[in-house]
Amino acid sequence: MPLTLYGYWRSSAAYRLRIALNLKGVAYDQVSINLKDGEQTGEAWLAKQPQGLVPLLEDGDMRLVQSPAMLEWIEETWPQPALLPDNSDARCLVRGWASVIACDIHPVQNLRILKAAAALDGSGFDGMKAWAQRWTQSGLEALERMVAGHARSTPFLFGDTPGMSEVYLVPQMYNARRWETDLSNCPTLVKADEAARALPAFAKAAPENQPDAD
Amino acid sequence: MPLTLYGYWRSSAAYRLRIALNLKGVAYDQVSINLKDGEQTGEAWLAKQPQGLVPLLEDGDMRLVQSPAMLEWIEETWPQPALLPDNSDARCLVRGWASVIACDIHPVQNLRILKAAAALDGSGFDGMKAWAQRWTQSGLEALERMVAGHARSTPFLFGDTPGMSEVYLVPQMYNARRWETDLSNCPTLVKADEAARALPAFAKAAPENQPDAD
Repeated sequence: MPLTLYGYWRSSAAYRLRIALNLKGVAYDQVSINLKDGEQTGEAWLAKQPQGLVPLLEDGDMRLVQSPAMLEWIEETWPQPALLPDNSDARCLVRGWASVIACDIHPVQNLRILKAAAALDGSGFDGMKAWAQRWTQSGLEALERMVAGHARSTPFLFGDTPGMSEVYLVPQMYNARRWETDLSNCPTLVKADEAARALPAFAKAAPENQPDAD
Repeated sequence: MPLTLYGYWRSSAAYRLRIALNLKGVAYDQVSINLKDGEQTGEAWLAKQPQGLVPLLEDGDMRLVQSPAMLEWIEETWPQPALLPDNSDARCLVRGWASVIACDIHPVQNLRILKAAAALDGSGFDGMKAWAQRWTQSGLEALERMVAGHARSTPFLFGDTPGMSEVYLVPQMYNARRWETDLSNCPTLVKADEAARALPAFAKAAPENQPDAD
């Protein structure tokens, strides 16, 4: 029985999982939880995921949550092609870059936080945009300074092929573009993102190519 | 040469690292970066950590950032006692719980976000407190519902000894108490936190027991 991925076309954490599963060649069914209509806050979904968030993976009777945990599980379950480097120090470097996105950029410009921030001063859509741009731009510029110090011979952030860095980067860059974030100080990230998106595993995972895209 | 941990007594990500290193019996020197005085935004610190955040670990010439990445590195470098379960499905469960804290609770009530949120409506300290309580309480209550479904024979969230779950939980509960968050719906988390804090590795890592505590 294939995996079932509960997600939403624009969820950047679901987008990470689609990329990783595609890179590994793992088949999965998709079920859409409509974040725009608030399906994630309904009782049926909260019974599955008490945080009211997507994505979630079902593997038979087992339910997995939280994309960083699921990505490690995917890496352990289908080791090839490897998405993490083969030595511990390099793994820490790549996981650190991933974590800048997963822990410091993405969570503070998540939809529920954007809405809450804009509600504080009644600034509506413009307030959401300003808040998203602020944390996305400063976060990506810090990440750019981190990755720029690392020697590379391909456009990818680490090694010759896209890996865990791009699994996190590409969805975050999609969000950045969506909020019209200034990326002019992030040339290394822009290049890695473009090179990755040209590959089939990433193209197939893109939000606009999902069945629930509207 | 021992590791050097750059942190701050009240930084909950630094607190995670202190607990993990103490549980493993790994020696480390501590350097305090004074977050209250804004030392993290000075040029000297930004040259080391472009995000302007703590903690950071130095191991000889190597600099490691981002606590989730560093905790995996610590687990790989000093495997015993293990902080993660020995099978992949259980590791995903525990990493998922950790990630609820690391990605969804902690980042949105980080000092820089609290200040930015309170600045939106000029609500000052009361606004910071309300924002911190809101995301901490809802996040911990969701985590409580997740962990409550897992059978256990000790107060710890997984297994017979404290592990990665408590490494993340205890600092977040410290923050929750600091902001006077209502924890009455989180009995399993309260019990695990109390049991862990009674142990020397956790007591030694507590904020109030650090040299830079004021």
